[in-house]
Amino acid sequence: MTHAPLYGGIEAGGTKWVCAIGTGPDDIRAEVRFPTTTPAETLANAIAFFRAHEPEHLAAIGVGSFGPVDLNPASPSYGSITTTPKPGWAHTDVVRTLHQALGRPIGFDTDVNVALLGERQWGAARDCDVAVYITVGTGIGGGAVVGGKLVHGLIHPEMGHMRLVRDPARDPFPGICPYHSDCLEGLACGPALKARWQTPAEELPADHPAWELEADYLGQALANLLCILSPERIIIGGGVMSQPQMFPLVRAATQRWLNGYLQHPHILDHPDRLIVPPALGQRAGVLGAIALAMHTAGGV
Amino acid sequence: MTHAPLYGGIEAGGTKWVCAIGTGPDDIRAEVRFPTTTPAETLANAIAFFRAHEPEHLAAIGVGSFGPVDLNPASPSYGSITTTPKPGWAHTDVVRTLHQALGRPIGFDTDVNVALLGERQWGAARDCDVAVYITVGTGIGGGAVVGGKLVHGLIHPEMGHMRLVRDPARDPFPGICPYHSDCLEGLACGPALKARWQTPAEELPADHPAWELEADYLGQALANLLCILSPERIIIGGGVMSQPQMFPLVRAATQRWLNGYLQHPHILDHPDRLIVPPALGQRAGVLGAIALAMHTAGGV
Ligand SMILES: Nc1ncnc2c1ncn2[C@@H]1O[C@H](COP(=O)(O)OP(=O)(O)O)[C@@H](O)[C@H]1O
Ligand SMILES: Nc1ncnc2c1ncn2[C@@H]1O[C@H](COP(=O)(O)OP(=O)(O)O)[C@@H](O)[C@H]1O
Ligand SMILES: [Zn+2]
Ligand SMILES: [Zn+2]
Repeated sequence: MTHAPLYGGIEAGGTKWVCAIGTGPDDIRAEVRFPTTTPAETLANAIAFFRAHEPEHLAAIGVGSFGPVDLNPASPSYGSITTTPKPGWAHTDVVRTLHQALGRPIGFDTDVNVALLGERQWGAARDCDVAVYITVGTGIGGGAVVGGKLVHGLIHPEMGHMRLVRDPARDPFPGICPYHSDCLEGLACGPALKARWQTPAEELPADHPAWELEADYLGQALANLLCILSPERIIIGGGVMSQPQMFPLVRAATQRWLNGYLQHPHILDHPDRLIVPPALGQRAGVLGAIALAMHTAGGV
Repeated sequence: MTHAPLYGGIEAGGTKWVCAIGTGPDDIRAEVRFPTTTPAETLANAIAFFRAHEPEHLAAIGVGSFGPVDLNPASPSYGSITTTPKPGWAHTDVVRTLHQALGRPIGFDTDVNVALLGERQWGAARDCDVAVYITVGTGIGGGAVVGGKLVHGLIHPEMGHMRLVRDPARDPFPGICPYHSDCLEGLACGPALKARWQTPAEELPADHPAWELEADYLGQALANLLCILSPERIIIGGGVMSQPQMFPLVRAATQRWLNGYLQHPHILDHPDRLIVPPALGQRAGVLGAIALAMHTAGGV
C-alpha cells in the first residue's frame, strides 16, 4: 500500500488503444488493450477500464493520440481529433468525453510527443536537456523536448514535412505527400517505400538498395535537425526502423550530410550515442501517456 | 538613485564592439563603441570602460560574441572564440580575460543568441514561448528560445547550415559553403549574393530577380523551421534584410513552401505577425548582452 499519487495513461492509436494505471515502468497496476473501432465504442471501452479501477484515485489521465489533433487550449475544438481521414473519427472530442465520464484532469497530446515524454522520463532521453523523437511509420512525425518540456509553440512540430534534397538521377520517384510531394514524409514513410519499390516495406530484403536510399533521406533530415535544434539525442522509432540494418546506415548518412561541420564527439566519433532506438519497448506509448498525466497533475 | 541591480553588456562583433551599462532599453547609463582591432587592444578597451564605471556595482556582464565560440561549460576552452579565420582572434579567451580583470560573473553566448534574448525580453518576441532569430549577413546564423531560455543542446544551433532544395535550371549557382556548397548559408548569405550576381548585394536594384530567388530560399528555410520548431515568431535581421522589399517576398515564399499544410491564421492570413524584423534597432546587440547578464545573475 502506498499513498503516492496514481496516474492513468491512454495510448490512443489508429489501430489499437492501450490503457493503463500506474506510476512508471516498474509499477503498472492494471492494463488493457483493444482494437480501435468506432469512436463511441472505443472511448466506452477506455472509460469502462478506468471505472473498474477507482478512477477517483487517479491524479490525472494522459492521452497520446493519433491525429491530427487540436492542442490549442484557447480553441473550441481543443482536445479533439480533427480532420482525420479515418472513417467516423473526424471531430471526435476525446478530452471532453473522458473528462465528463471520469471527472479527472485529462492531459492530451500527439502520439509522438507523448512517446518522447516517456523516453525523457524513463528511457533513452533521460539525461537530456534537448531531445527529439522521430517515428517512421505510416507517416513521419516528430516531437522535441527542451528543458524537460514538450515544444508546442504556434501549433506543434510537424517534422515529417521538412523539405529534402532529392537527386532525380538517383531517385526519380516524386514522393507521395499530397501537400509537398517530396518532403521527408513524402519520400521516406512506409507507404512511400511501398509505392517506390512496388513492394511492402517489410518484404524488402535487407540488402535491397531501398535501405541505403531510405537512410540517406533520414540522415539528411537528422543533419537538418542537428543544425536547427542541436539535440543531445535523437530517438527514431516506427515500423520502418525495425529493420536492424537501418541504425548504422542512418548514423553514417547523418555524418555524410554534416560533412564535419558540427564538431562534437557524439557526431564525429560516437553517433551511436546520439542516434538511438526507443528504450521503453512495447509499453512506450502508454508509459508516455502516464508521464503526460504526471505533467498534467503538476507532479513533474 | 536606485538600489536595483545594474548590468553590463558587450556586443563583441567582428567589426565593432559596443559596451554599455544599464537595466534595459529605457535605462542605458553609459555606452561606448570602438572598432575591433587586436584581441589585446579590444579587450583592454572594454575593460577600461567598465573600470571607469564602478564595475563592483554590476551584478553580471553579458557578452554576445562573433564566432565560432565554445559554449560548453565543461570544456577547457569554454568562453573562447575558437577557430575563427579573423586574423589574431583564434583561441581568444574572452570570458577568462574579462573575469580576471573585472571580477564579475560573465555570461557568454553567440551574437545571434544574445540578440534573440534581447528581443525576447524587450522586443519583437516578448510574448512568445517559442521564437527564432535568423541573421542574414556575412553568414547566416540562427538561435531559438523555448520557455524563456536559449536552446543550446549538444552545441548550439547552426541554422545556416540546413540543406535546401535548389533547382539547377532556375539557379545554376552551386553555393559557397566550404562544407555543404548549397546549404542555406551557401546559397543566401550576403557573399553568396555577390558571388552569384557579380555585384555586391547592397548594389543590386530592388527589382532585380536576385531578391525573388533570395526570398524563395529564405521562405523554404522558414517553412522548415515552422515544421521543426513551430515558433510563434521568426525575427529576421542582418544586412541583407535591410532591403525593404524582402519581408513581403519572404512571407509569400514561406506560404508557398508550406502550401496550406500548417493551418494557423498567422501562417495563412497574417504572416506579418509571424515573420518580423527585430524591434530593438541599433542597440539590439548590446541590449541583448544586458539581457544575458540578467540571466547570468539569476535576475530573470
Ligand atoms: N519490419 C518492417 N520493416 C519495414 N517496414 C515496416 C516493418 N514493419 C512495418 N513497416 C512499415 O511501417 C509502416 C507502419 O508503421 P508503424 O509504426 O508500425 O504504424 P503506424 O505508423 O501506423 O502507427 C507501414 O508502412 C509498414 O510497411
Ligand atoms: N542594404 C543592403 N542590402 C543588401 N545587402 C546588404 C545591405 N547592407 C549590407 N548587406 C550585405 O550584408 C552583409 C553584411 O551583413 P551584416 O549583417 O551587415 O554584417 P555581419 O553579418 O558581418 O555582422 C554583406 O554581405 C553585405 O553585402
Ligand atoms: Zn509534406
Ligand atoms: Zn553549410
